[in-house]
Amino acid sequence: MGATEKLARFVIETPSEKISDEAIERATAGLMDAVGTALVANTNEIGRIITEFTEEVGGTPVSRVIGTNIKTSSPNAALANGTLGHADDYDDVGGFGHPAVILMPTVLALGEQLGKTGREILDAYVLGFDVGARLAQGIGGDHYERGWHSTVTLGTLASAAAASRLMGLTVDQTRHALGIAASHAAGMQANFGTMTKPLHPGNGARSGITAATLASKGYTANQNIIEAPLGYVAVFGDKQANINAMTHQLGDAQWQIVNPGFKIKEWPCCYGNHGAVPMLIDLVHKYEIQPEQVESVEFIGGMGASGFLNRPDTDTYFGGKFSLQFNIAAAVVDGAMSYDTFTDEKVNSPEIRDMMSRVILKDDIMTKDLPARIHSQHRDQTVVINMKDGRSVSDSIETATNTLVGHEIDVKFEANASKVLPSEKVERALSLLKDLKNVKDISEVLDAVTV
Amino acid sequence: MGATEKLARFVIETPSEKISDEAIERATAGLMDAVGTALVANTNEIGRIITEFTEEVGGTPVSRVIGTNIKTSSPNAALANGTLGHADDYDDVGGFGHPAVILMPTVLALGEQLGKTGREILDAYVLGFDVGARLAQGIGGDHYERGWHSTVTLGTLASAAAASRLMGLTVDQTRHALGIAASHAAGMQANFGTMTKPLHPGNGARSGITAATLASKGYTANQNIIEAPLGYVAVFGDKQANINAMTHQLGDAQWQIVNPGFKIKEWPCCYGNHGAVPMLIDLVHKYEIQPEQVESVEFIGGMGASGFLNRPDTDTYFGGKFSLQFNIAAAVVDGAMSYDTFTDEKVNSPEIRDMMSRVILKDDIMTKDLPARIHSQHRDQTVVINMKDGRSVSDSIETATNTLVGHEIDVKFEANASKVLPSEKVERALSLLKDLKNVKDISEVLDAVTV
Repeated sequence: MGATEKLARFVIETPSEKISDEAIERATAGLMDAVGTALVANTNEIGRIITEFTEEVGGTPVSRVIGTNIKTSSPNAALANGTLGHADDYDDVGGFGHPAVILMPTVLALGEQLGKTGREILDAYVLGFDVGARLAQGIGGDHYERGWHSTVTLGTLASAAAASRLMGLTVDQTRHALGIAASHAAGMQANFGTMTKPLHPGNGARSGITAATLASKGYTANQNIIEAPLGYVAVFGDKQANINAMTHQLGDAQWQIVNPGFKIKEWPCCYGNHGAVPMLIDLVHKYEIQPEQVESVEFIGGMGASGFLNRPDTDTYFGGKFSLQFNIAAAVVDGAMSYDTFTDEKVNSPEIRDMMSRVILKDDIMTKDLPARIHSQHRDQTVVINMKDGRSVSDSIETATNTLVGHEIDVKFEANASKVLPSEKVERALSLLKDLKNVKDISEVLDAVTV
Repeated sequence: MGATEKLARFVIETPSEKISDEAIERATAGLMDAVGTALVANTNEIGRIITEFTEEVGGTPVSRVIGTNIKTSSPNAALANGTLGHADDYDDVGGFGHPAVILMPTVLALGEQLGKTGREILDAYVLGFDVGARLAQGIGGDHYERGWHSTVTLGTLASAAAASRLMGLTVDQTRHALGIAASHAAGMQANFGTMTKPLHPGNGARSGITAATLASKGYTANQNIIEAPLGYVAVFGDKQANINAMTHQLGDAQWQIVNPGFKIKEWPCCYGNHGAVPMLIDLVHKYEIQPEQVESVEFIGGMGASGFLNRPDTDTYFGGKFSLQFNIAAAVVDGAMSYDTFTDEKVNSPEIRDMMSRVILKDDIMTKDLPARIHSQHRDQTVVINMKDGRSVSDSIETATNTLVGHEIDVKFEANASKVLPSEKVERALSLLKDLKNVKDISEVLDAVTV
């Protein structure tokens, strides 16, 4: 049996009872966090354009767009909700990139259209996560190194898997849905730092729902798309591809959403900054460092000087989310970071620009000349603040692990939701989302997160 | 100035007067042919499913779906019209694959929404063709060899270019549109022989319109997407990529739609069969060969034994379009080929299956062991009919050039249109489409090709 059939069987035939409480709890947290990031995105330019576009193209009103009064077709709602969810790069990270903004829009839009329960959409979420994370392991790190944005190139199939589960497709139809989805998988890193990055997961979720819907009507594709000659792995994989890894211990291994799991971001910027920022904030407070005392700030390792976060000249809040120079400068100057750190004004303020010019990015000397496949596994990060008086203070970590837990996740949701919803809706949404597994009809949740 | 900016300037700043009459004439023929293939596709299963899906998801009614009474948003109409146009693999071939089914749906859907003239949509068509064909030359033959379906991976940008021209975007907005489109470019050959192949150009046209529409609202992307590090060429190109070729003599060279131009298919099957089929039909008539006299039929060269047309076991009419064994058997048994050759019944008939089992595919001995980049440039094709009485007859060509010209194009259109439209509409559509450059509002054409 090929990988495509194995994954399709797993998605369709796994009984709900087999999905652990811990997996359901993690899916609940990831989904809720992404609904919050989608809500707050209605306050920014990306949110304005994507909702205006969604309203303009219209669609049969069966699924709602978060934070708005728009009701449209499920593919269009998924496009909008995925784009909103990722608009600030504030959503979670792990598995196959940014899993929640692919899976949340898929299961919410289709769940509302089909009148599904909270538990049904969480099951689909967990299974879709597993498919995406397994594809990520099997496709190899050189997939990302070629320039693909894995969130969507892998996530489009994860969305199709989740949609197939929710629609109750047969195994055969699910294989067709995965085949259709594979021909929609697209999105490149060269668009990072522009509004097109958040469009990627929106487009992936739209494509996954479209693929499952067409398959449900008898539309066909290559039923072995993952392993086929010139198929998904052949086209998207390079030297590191390993098809067997995609189905290793399928159904017996721990749920991917639990282990390796995902991290919930504390700040609305690329996770590549989430190592340097907390270290710098700690140093600034510990040594009571004032901006005017700083001669230079060095950052060594991570994706450092040779990665896409080397953006010394960015002049927009959105580019700032992908600039190590800006994130480092903001952490040192403000000794703090929040949603409001990312504004055009802040990015262009004289104090920040002055500090950005003092930031020095260095690649890790241990690994910089090694092949990318080794380099990319090595995540050591070091920050050094060099003072004008000759002192230096520094900190290091082996890999960034910053994540919100427990009550912090609720606080983040409330802060995001409060920027768009009245307080009674915020509390209603929070209580429904935290107890999503017991919600009888997902449309109750949409009532609470729309205006 | 980078390739992206050069192409955007060319698309936006070329005055209509500079576009030659011959280019406009070729665009008219290609567009008309694709409208015809979209019409007849409403009689098949792919047509049934894609129009049912389009009706179900709905959309603001501004653009119509060919051969139906559906009016929906321009992206949705483009998805349906592109899929219909390519549903039978009966549309034209050249430039970047199947150009008409990317460009026709883009300019018709957007042209109707915006109330454009026939000449305006033909200008956009010619410019979009040029962009697609130039990307094809620059990306290199190994793009296709990796497994990409160039019709859509290149065509999505051709569509965005045509859409940007029609919408009257600025050069800057067009660069953003190309960047957004690049993150939608997808579609793999592993889905050839399934219903997903025709979905590719539909999806490409939908994406091109979406990209230009978002860019018109201020949505951003990498403005140098073609040449950017990890951008379009880096991600989609392999060893043969040549960015300079994409803009060589831009604006001074002959129009790509004229030279190398495109071919209008005589039969509804992959063009890879259009070398063997006419040679075999000629031989059968010249030597009055009856099926029962045939011992075996050999085919040597072309994409032969090692290509995706080696499908001895296909059992659907759609798979038959991509099976050299089936096309060869049908040509020899029937001594003719038509739209009605491609049915499940014919593919599975005992006489055809018996002849299919006698078909022998061989790779060209001169080139089979050479690298693919050389192999794929060599298009010699030979057919040999070996008779039971020991005689053999054969024919050879250097490359397939079969194409319809002049009145034959009208006859094909009338035959296709007549399967869906009443005769007065067929004649009205034919006369409007042949004189498209003088049509005042493209909606007149849509009146004639919808029910």
